Amino acid sequence: MTLKNIPTKASQEYRNFPMVPRVVYGKGSFNTLGDILMSKRKHSEAPMIYLVDDVFENTDLLNRIPKIFCDQIILISAEDEPKTQQVDALVSMLKENYNELPSGIIGIGGGTLLDLAKAVAIMLTNKGGAAEYQGWDLVKKQPIYHVGIPTISGTGAEVSRTTVLMGPEKKLGINSDYTTFDQVLLDPDLTVGVPKEQWFYTGMDCFIHCVESLNGTFLNAFSKSYGEKSLELCKEVFLEDIDESESREKLMMASWHGGMSIAYSQVGVAHAMSYGLGYVLGVKHGIGNCLVFQFLEEFYPEGVVLFNNMLKKHKIVLPKGVCSNLTESEMDTMITVALGMEPLWENALGENWKSIITAQKLKAIYQKI
Amino acid sequence: MTLKNIPTKASQEYRNFPMVPRVVYGKGSFNTLGDILMSKRKHSEAPMIYLVDDVFENTDLLNRIPKIFCDQIILISAEDEPKTQQVDALVSMLKENYNELPSGIIGIGGGTLLDLAKAVAIMLTNKGGAAEYQGWDLVKKQPIYHVGIPTISGTGAEVSRTTVLMGPEKKLGINSDYTTFDQVLLDPDLTVGVPKEQWFYTGMDCFIHCVESLNGTFLNAFSKSYGEKSLELCKEVFLEDIDESESREKLMMASWHGGMSIAYSQVGVAHAMSYGLGYVLGVKHGIGNCLVFQFLEEFYPEGVVLFNNMLKKHKIVLPKGVCSNLTESEMDTMITVALGMEPLWENALGENWKSIITAQKLKAIYQKI
Repeated sequence: MTLKNIPTKASQEYRNFPMVPRVVYGKGSFNTLGDILMSKRKHSEAPMIYLVDDVFENTDLLNRIPKIFCDQIILISAEDEPKTQQVDALVSMLKENYNELPSGIIGIGGGTLLDLAKAVAIMLTNKGGAAEYQGWDLVKKQPIYHVGIPTISGTGAEVSRTTVLMGPEKKLGINSDYTTFDQVLLDPDLTVGVPKEQWFYTGMDCFIHCVESLNGTFLNAFSKSYGEKSLELCKEVFLEDIDESESREKLMMASWHGGMSIAYSQVGVAHAMSYGLGYVLGVKHGIGNCLVFQFLEEFYPEGVVLFNNMLKKHKIVLPKGVCSNLTESEMDTMITVALGMEPLWENALGENWKSIITAQKLKAIYQKI
Repeated sequence: MTLKNIPTKASQEYRNFPMVPRVVYGKGSFNTLGDILMSKRKHSEAPMIYLVDDVFENTDLLNRIPKIFCDQIILISAEDEPKTQQVDALVSMLKENYNELPSGIIGIGGGTLLDLAKAVAIMLTNKGGAAEYQGWDLVKKQPIYHVGIPTISGTGAEVSRTTVLMGPEKKLGINSDYTTFDQVLLDPDLTVGVPKEQWFYTGMDCFIHCVESLNGTFLNAFSKSYGEKSLELCKEVFLEDIDESESREKLMMASWHGGMSIAYSQVGVAHAMSYGLGYVLGVKHGIGNCLVFQFLEEFYPEGVVLFNNMLKKHKIVLPKGVCSNLTESEMDTMITVALGMEPLWENALGENWKSIITAQKLKAIYQKI
């Protein structure tokens, strides 16, 4: 597999970063969704399509979705990482079911649902299959209006210019200026009821990517200021004793600032290796990062100490022996996928990263997991 | 004078905030301006108009402006606060000189130039005079594409949804979702050479509005996180001993985050009273805030202590006797203008602000200045 346009520190130095042009924040702000969407409806035959995490089946949230005309709610499981085939299937279905392109795609859920919403919006106006766009700046046409509404905090997907998909050949994002949501709605009350472990692992996605970005070589003052604020909020949420409602608000903002910090930085070793785990074993992104990060004291000494304190405080026990039954060939694939994340390694270890990190070193770390 | 749509805490609670959709950050990033503008040029007869602070006359910056076709550079003094008549005159001139509307308006300078660029972009597509749009959400039509490039840090004008103008009847912003820049370019190197006092007063605009926003009643977790980061950066810049280049970068980010913190908050007592000083005596916004803030220990005790330390560290001596020769009627006007800033008082003192702050109390503070 050959990849084009791989970003380097130099190529992203003066990036003209696309920010989410509209954001609503506030407990209860979900109730404003109907008004927000109204002005974006092309006409009654062009529906709003809501992609919603199926944990909300039979909950009141579905009744609160402003579904009118021929709008459709599609419930989707977030058990597995989002896939390019899944995106293609959703796009085909929408094209078959409607004579008109939708007025908008609204993702309601965690990183999986947000990434699916971004990818479906892109693939409704761009030819071919989603896998053809995995990479950097390959999208050519303006996507459908798309809205992100996180119901769990930490991935930063609500503010990033990527949608990470599992493809037939690789796990890689569709990274483009077109990927960013047109509208984000941040309602901390939507995160009430997230199971504790999922809360922890997804929050650690944010914590870990702040550590990686702040310790990376790509960092500039813009991204540093966002990363520092996000890290500070993560520490308050996971190491201090604060009120639950306040904690939900702070984690939602940590995720937001953490995502913004990626504008002129990159994630690093944990994310690169977690991509390998995800690709070969289907390990979800949040827990994958944690499984790797615990063994990265060589690269992130202070971060790993904080992480261990967080595990302890919340009595989280990470699974063991995850990689113990891998075949030689599976281990090789895992290493190849991880090493394929070139920008992440360049960010973590500098231009000469290939002289620092070797397949053998990665294997030794994977074997501990 | 009657004002419509005055925002209250309740009315802005779920505001759908317009963020700057594109931002470039980086030392030297000014050199990317030509490429950024190229894709926004409608055709060769529709010029880019650069409004530039006249301190840059005969400097290399003018040569670096990507002026092609019939583009025009207009040098403007920032000695005085921007005025509605000035906006109207610029708009008339552009309409007379060109057959086509400009492709874009680019403001290069401090708050004055940024505010002029925003207002001219709005008034090129909206009928009547600028004074008719002073208030909240009165703009009806999409303005011309407009770009903000700050050359001094602190006002937050680069990221805000307002452009504050001195009108025939009032000093008040054109506050609207259309006001926000379409593109911002943040190049900390452009702030090299700002005179020390101006650097201090403009930086204090940021510091003071963070104190006001963080101590206000409108604040939510979104704005709090931005305000806290901005305040932290201000403290580093004005109370610690850091490298000059780093200091310029931090102050530029402080201004950015400080401006963002206003999304769901408001400024307070110092800004309201500074509006009065500006209207009657033409005192510029930055120094006006400082002149007022020094006497606000009743409202912002911790902030005033920090402020005094900053004054001392940078050996800044504020002018005295500024209000000593005011006539009774001038003093009354000043108080009326200040008390007219209702949202600022509601934010600072709560819904019952009218029972807390009186004309007499304001007069006593003004007389100290």
